[in-house]
Amino acid sequence: LALKGSNYAGLLERHRIHTKNVEHVVDSLRNERIEVRLVKRREYNEETVRWADAVISAGGDGTMLLAASKVFDKFKPVIGVNTDPERSEGHLCLPVRYTHSFPEALQKLYRGEFRWQWRQRIRLYLEGTGINPTPVDLHEQQLSQEQYSRAHINERFQDQRSEISGPHLLPVRALNEVFIGESLSSRYAVCSVSFRENYKSCKPSFKFSLHRASYYEISVDDGPWEKQKSSGLNVCTGTGSKAWSYNINKVANQAVEEILKIAKKHGGLNLPLNAELVQKVTNDYNDSLLYSPEEPKMLFSIREPIVNRVFSSSRQRGFSSKVCVRSRCWDACMVVDGGTSFEFNDGAIASILIDTEDALCTVLLEE
Amino acid sequence: LALKGSNYAGLLERHRIHTKNVEHVVDSLRNERIEVRLVKRREYNEETVRWADAVISAGGDGTMLLAASKVFDKFKPVIGVNTDPERSEGHLCLPVRYTHSFPEALQKLYRGEFRWQWRQRIRLYLEGTGINPTPVDLHEQQLSQEQYSRAHINERFQDQRSEISGPHLLPVRALNEVFIGESLSSRYAVCSVSFRENYKSCKPSFKFSLHRASYYEISVDDGPWEKQKSSGLNVCTGTGSKAWSYNINKVANQAVEEILKIAKKHGGLNLPLNAELVQKVTNDYNDSLLYSPEEPKMLFSIREPIVNRVFSSSRQRGFSSKVCVRSRCWDACMVVDGGTSFEFNDGAIASILIDTEDALCTVLLEE
Repeated sequence: LALKGSNYAGLLERHRIHTKNVEHVVDSLRNERIEVRLVKRREYNEETVRWADAVISAGGDGTMLLAASKVFDKFKPVIGVNTDPERSEGHLCLPVRYTHSFPEALQKLYRGEFRWQWRQRIRLYLEGTGINPTPVDLHEQQLSQEQYSRAHINERFQDQRSEISGPHLLPVRALNEVFIGESLSSRYAVCSVSFRENYKSCKPSFKFSLHRASYYEISVDDGPWEKQKSSGLNVCTGTGSKAWSYNINKVANQAVEEILKIAKKHGGLNLPLNAELVQKVTNDYNDSLLYSPEEPKMLFSIREPIVNRVFSSSRQRGFSSKVCVRSRCWDACMVVDGGTSFEFNDGAIASILIDTEDALCTVLLEE
Repeated sequence: LALKGSNYAGLLERHRIHTKNVEHVVDSLRNERIEVRLVKRREYNEETVRWADAVISAGGDGTMLLAASKVFDKFKPVIGVNTDPERSEGHLCLPVRYTHSFPEALQKLYRGEFRWQWRQRIRLYLEGTGINPTPVDLHEQQLSQEQYSRAHINERFQDQRSEISGPHLLPVRALNEVFIGESLSSRYAVCSVSFRENYKSCKPSFKFSLHRASYYEISVDDGPWEKQKSSGLNVCTGTGSKAWSYNINKVANQAVEEILKIAKKHGGLNLPLNAELVQKVTNDYNDSLLYSPEEPKMLFSIREPIVNRVFSSSRQRGFSSKVCVRSRCWDACMVVDGGTSFEFNDGAIASILIDTEDALCTVLLEE
């Protein structure tokens, strides 16, 4: 790592801080005679979840997403503790001060000084010819030789199963968002080959360039199908409206200023165009992109839509109860919470919606 | 392909059309007793360019980018013929009608009914510890076993060369843009493994999920260094201002309408907010994103900047003569025209600028 110029000392320190914070949480629980199983990412599975009365994630928002990804029981609370506040926003975690005084959080839970919060999640149905409903876990850094073979066998098995075209309910629930887009550009296929020392066997790692437009058709709330070309489609929950969706949709101060300047030039602005007005308008616009995690509605956003300059009546963004997408992509994926991926190529049809039965149970402590 | 649900008949037809169009161009040239070498992508190299007095690309915009990528002589004309008008915009090519009547274009060239157009291009310097100035061609669909080994040897050789930290002028000139961003998210590492029938040997192909924020520091026109976190940095030419840059920066009708509504709510709009005003403002704003390919200036754009809601004075977009970027990325690339890629990881520093000596010579036919 140091040879690459990475900050090894910094990584080590953050690991030390994280480990200390985890110990604090575990000790606080055991001091209350609560039975605790401490599991790492790779050991965390549905059996562990079944054993638990509640699940606490210790890490950042990504760890919380991982923790939630294996919980399908609406009444099993999942609580996030942010053990890496320097690096993680902790949107999905308890406020940072409980990281160092977790007993305070436990006391509030005991005294009922909290309310339940149900974060709505998205479910996915997949159908069509040649679909592959096998999820792939993106949190694995690399596949071992054994996993290559297993995936290979899965793929061959899938070829036989692709005759069954009825809608499959995928074994995932999106807490933040589902993102659909081309993951591999066959024009921009192989980026570079590097053999790293930390690979158990000498496996090439391929890096792929990012950009190739995604083609698909979209129908919102059972409306008419519309062909689109873009950098991808994001469908999020209220929770996810603060995440990637926010970054796709938010407008910059600079852009608002220029838009208002142009409107003024057309004679349409009578207030002085000062920094204060620009900031207000920018903030109001960006605030309108956020909504409550408990609202059972989805926000879909087209990322970098490719359109011509003719006035288009189709919306770049909107709320909906149901989104259907037909892939016309060459090599695309549906990615759930940045953690699980499904092939989504030409011929596949996804139905995306919220069922309140899939909500995730979390807590909001009183302040 | 058909098993995957791809439109094999459609692909075949487009190939037929392309082949017919190429024959038309070659025949038109030979009818004028012009010596023609017809080369495919893999045979196109610098020796061929040296042999030629002029280069004609037959394909879409991508083929034109490829053709230009091997021309470094300011006085060697490169002309694009769009043989795939159904699928390619042809921004970089002659107007589509010359595809079917190429002799007409030749006549104009003979009679001087054209002017030279010099499309400015971007050059890149790379320096820093552990850098790897080896370019990787993204237009290869896959590397053969032999190329794996060669790249491997290159990599080992590079490890010895990384002591030389002085700025390397990279052997590329960007006609559209340089894009810098994380190409591999180590959190979202391996997407899926599929073994395809058309691979000569049984090689796994890896697909990677798209999203991991890029960390870097940027200095514009030798200004102060600024830390940024975003979905990537795009630095384009006037030519490229119509390409990916445009899609990153353009504003949607819907967004302008909402911004003007909010401004009106704050009492700042006296014109009626009608569709016509919204369209005018949208068009003016989007037009302002474009500029002449011959202007020796670059447009940098931050894609999906990650900022907090405090008023930020740094611009999301702007013109500049020079952009310097220090990578703080884990696994990033600098991608030139979507075709060539360079590692750009923590420790690497890129200097990005336009030198008019690097301009590409093209033609604008009189209409």
